[in-house]
Amino acid sequence: MRELAAFEAGIKLGALFHQFVGIPVSFENVELVEKTMESCMKLQPYVVDAEVKIDKRKLKERLSSFNYTSLEGDMIFARVKVRVENDEVEAVLEYDKKLKYPLMRLLL
Amino acid sequence: MRELAAFEAGIKLGALFHQFVGIPVSFENVELVEKTMESCMKLQPYVVDAEVKIDKRKLKERLSSFNYTSLEGDMIFARVKVRVENDEVEAVLEYDKKLKYPLMRLLL
Amino acid sequence: MRELAAFEAGIKLGALFHQFVGIPVSFENVELVEKTMESCMKLQPYVVDAEVKIDKRKLKERLSSFNYTSLEGDMIFARVKVRVENDEVEAVLEYDKKLKYPLMRLLL
Amino acid sequence: MRELAAFEAGIKLGALFHQFVGIPVSFENVELVEKTMESCMKLQPYVVDAEVKIDKRKLKERLSSFNYTSLEGDMIFARVKVRVENDEVEAVLEYDKKLKYPLMRLLL
Repeated sequence: MRELAAFEAGIKLGALFHQFVGIPVSFENVELVEKTMESCMKLQPYVVDAEVKIDKRKLKERLSSFNYTSLEGDMIFARVKVRVENDEVEAVLEYDKKLKYPLMRLLL
Repeated sequence: MRELAAFEAGIKLGALFHQFVGIPVSFENVELVEKTMESCMKLQPYVVDAEVKIDKRKLKERLSSFNYTSLEGDMIFARVKVRVENDEVEAVLEYDKKLKYPLMRLLL
Repeated sequence: MRELAAFEAGIKLGALFHQFVGIPVSFENVELVEKTMESCMKLQPYVVDAEVKIDKRKLKERLSSFNYTSLEGDMIFARVKVRVENDEVEAVLEYDKKLKYPLMRLLL
Repeated sequence: MRELAAFEAGIKLGALFHQFVGIPVSFENVELVEKTMESCMKLQPYVVDAEVKIDKRKLKERLSSFNYTSLEGDMIFARVKVRVENDEVEAVLEYDKKLKYPLMRLLL
């Protein structure tokens, strides 16, 4: 079952990243976007909790002359908790500078 | 200039469709999703107004056993108003049953 | 380790679905799209094999008057094999009519 | 009619950007991805020609430790030619460093 919970957690993070990367974001709608991203994870099967934070420092740096940017993978922090029967796992998506990679990992 | 406004309106509708199709949606987050979609259009250059409605009847029909669905193109109605200098155009995205197509068109 | 392999398999299927749903597809480019989808899975960490098939019967039914459609989740079959150290898992994405849901599951 | 052609060109570039940003890409599949992106534009109504180039220098710089990256907006160059009746317009998507923006513009 723990294996199934891990599988489900992976689905949620992979989905989140590839659905939302590219979305127009600025300081005007960033909280709305975070809330929507969380709501989309919470709808999915087996999710018991979800949190999304967009990096405000990176957001500021990347604002174009039109005062918004497109969401990039390294700006996203996400955490999801999944339960399948009695097994619960938690996983996060967080940019890893050394790997130059938006790393998804299980919290063990 | 009217040509430029028409070009900008096209960008916004093409972007909206391809960014948001696939997003998990249910009666729990549909208003949040509509608001986020509107906010993303409003951030973009030259947009003076934007409206998004997700078809609630289709939403209901398509709910899976997990009580949500993935947003499909024929569920989206969107309207955007764009102004470039003195020229304003309005365009809509609306499913056309006869064409079996999520048609984007200028309101002339 | 089996847990990690399951997590990685979940990521790949969640990513595939949410990246590619919405893509314009017809009989002209369907094989190219399948090949590209497979290539994108194979680039990702721990993937040892990947296969994607788009349902040609559904593709035919959904062609618009413009002779293409946007890829929908229920048209996708995908299979991915992932290995983390000595543990290998296989998972599939396949539409489940009864659940009205593009179900991702581990092959146990 | 020129206005309609401009509108259609805008749709194609907006769609391209928001459909493909985030796609896993490396030197192994970059040509396949470019070809697929072109094929998706060519399927759409009124398109008479389309070209996509992914910036190989940026691709190299951004490769993660896993030897691929996610396609970002500033890596895409695209050109589309659209004809509506007798009116033809051409438009491009190209990153503008000064604006820090993936600018879409009509070639007049």
